[in-house]
Amino acid sequence: MKNYRIVVEYDGSRYDGWQKQGNTDQTIQGKIEQVLERMSGKSIEVHGSGRTDAGVHALNQVANFHIDSDRKDQEIKEYLNHYLPEDIRVKTLEEVPERFHSRLNAEEKTYLYRIEMGEKRQVFDRKYIYGLHKKLDVKAMERAAAYLCGEHDFKSFCSNRKMKKSTVRNLKKIEFEKEDSRLFVRFTGDGFLYNMVRILMGTLIEVGLKERSPEEMAGILNALDRKTAGYTVPPEGLFLENVRYKQ
Amino acid sequence: MKNYRIVVEYDGSRYDGWQKQGNTDQTIQGKIEQVLERMSGKSIEVHGSGRTDAGVHALNQVANFHIDSDRKDQEIKEYLNHYLPEDIRVKTLEEVPERFHSRLNAEEKTYLYRIEMGEKRQVFDRKYIYGLHKKLDVKAMERAAAYLCGEHDFKSFCSNRKMKKSTVRNLKKIEFEKEDSRLFVRFTGDGFLYNMVRILMGTLIEVGLKERSPEEMAGILNALDRKTAGYTVPPEGLFLENVRYKQ
Repeated sequence: MKNYRIVVEYDGSRYDGWQKQGNTDQTIQGKIEQVLERMSGKSIEVHGSGRTDAGVHALNQVANFHIDSDRKDQEIKEYLNHYLPEDIRVKTLEEVPERFHSRLNAEEKTYLYRIEMGEKRQVFDRKYIYGLHKKLDVKAMERAAAYLCGEHDFKSFCSNRKMKKSTVRNLKKIEFEKEDSRLFVRFTGDGFLYNMVRILMGTLIEVGLKERSPEEMAGILNALDRKTAGYTVPPEGLFLENVRYKQ
Repeated sequence: MKNYRIVVEYDGSRYDGWQKQGNTDQTIQGKIEQVLERMSGKSIEVHGSGRTDAGVHALNQVANFHIDSDRKDQEIKEYLNHYLPEDIRVKTLEEVPERFHSRLNAEEKTYLYRIEMGEKRQVFDRKYIYGLHKKLDVKAMERAAAYLCGEHDFKSFCSNRKMKKSTVRNLKKIEFEKEDSRLFVRFTGDGFLYNMVRILMGTLIEVGLKERSPEEMAGILNALDRKTAGYTVPPEGLFLENVRYKQ
């Protein structure tokens, strides 16, 4: 058995997210597994670096799978891209050591969230940006972000109420980049809870709209209660941008 | 009556082109006229700089219309963008002299055609680029383009067999730009016949695939016969990029 690592780009618009969900499957993982089964005649499990929610996109999702195949790497990649739908693309494929696991070995992830502050989204971008259409005070958002960065219990920023595992994560940085009327926000951390990026973003937007002060962030973190944080922003602005592994 | 000039961006994917077509209307012109009628209570005609075909996009289509309105320019623009569908956007709106006519005064147009030569289109780009997935000899295409540029009778590059008006046009330049596995081709001229850009592009692609030699271009121009030219490339790669007017 060989172990292959793939980097995948997808438009999440018409999918129920990354993770496979039974038989009537409209997930990214499911689509890739279907093509690998077609190629190999066997059922193959694809391990993603993590889930992405329904409607969330990926620029560089990382996944791996084990397969017996005489095909060359390039042939497998071409086979996948030939049979995958147009909104899923395998960017690279390479053989990796047996023990590599895309989720367990992931050290750091970066998510990008895109916001249109101007009056209308650019038409070619409309499925890939959140149409907020309001001006944001980015300086205030940066002050709020400083409270959120670091190792904290992010229970207030997690939608899953039944979460029994640790909700402590190390949020390494939040970076803001303005481009005309668009704001790009990058979240880098060792891992993210369910909906964590989208709730962080919604809370920061409420700061940017002056509905909350940056100083409130400390209290929200301490409350360990989802109700104290801001709203969950919609998925179309969110991209899994990068997953980093130990070299 | 005031005369307004607008610059419009649209994703042509789900439209039957720019030009209005009776009542069951799914055209860009029709959508804009509907919003202006809603705003003014009157039937308003919008004049585009030219038609774009079904599925063709625009980055900067120019149009004008006459209207009685007490609203400020910015208010009219915001009204339009509020009621227009997400895939049509008014980028700028300004009052212009009474006699300005977006079609009659247009001096030069530039169309952009985008081709993916690599194995798969980038997923976020898939509706905005032609998936050729074959390597092209751009040097040969440039040699062919040199034959096509200049003032010629482009009857061989026109789909409309019943064209009774002059088919002479001045094709000022064809520019090639490579970006990784993508090829961007810009056609600038004083005007273009029905399907002319898409037939020019298809013919140049046949040269790039070595199915034709660059030297054949002279014979195709001279033949004045659509059958001698290459195929019509699909609309999704085509963008009306710019329309130029006398200053």
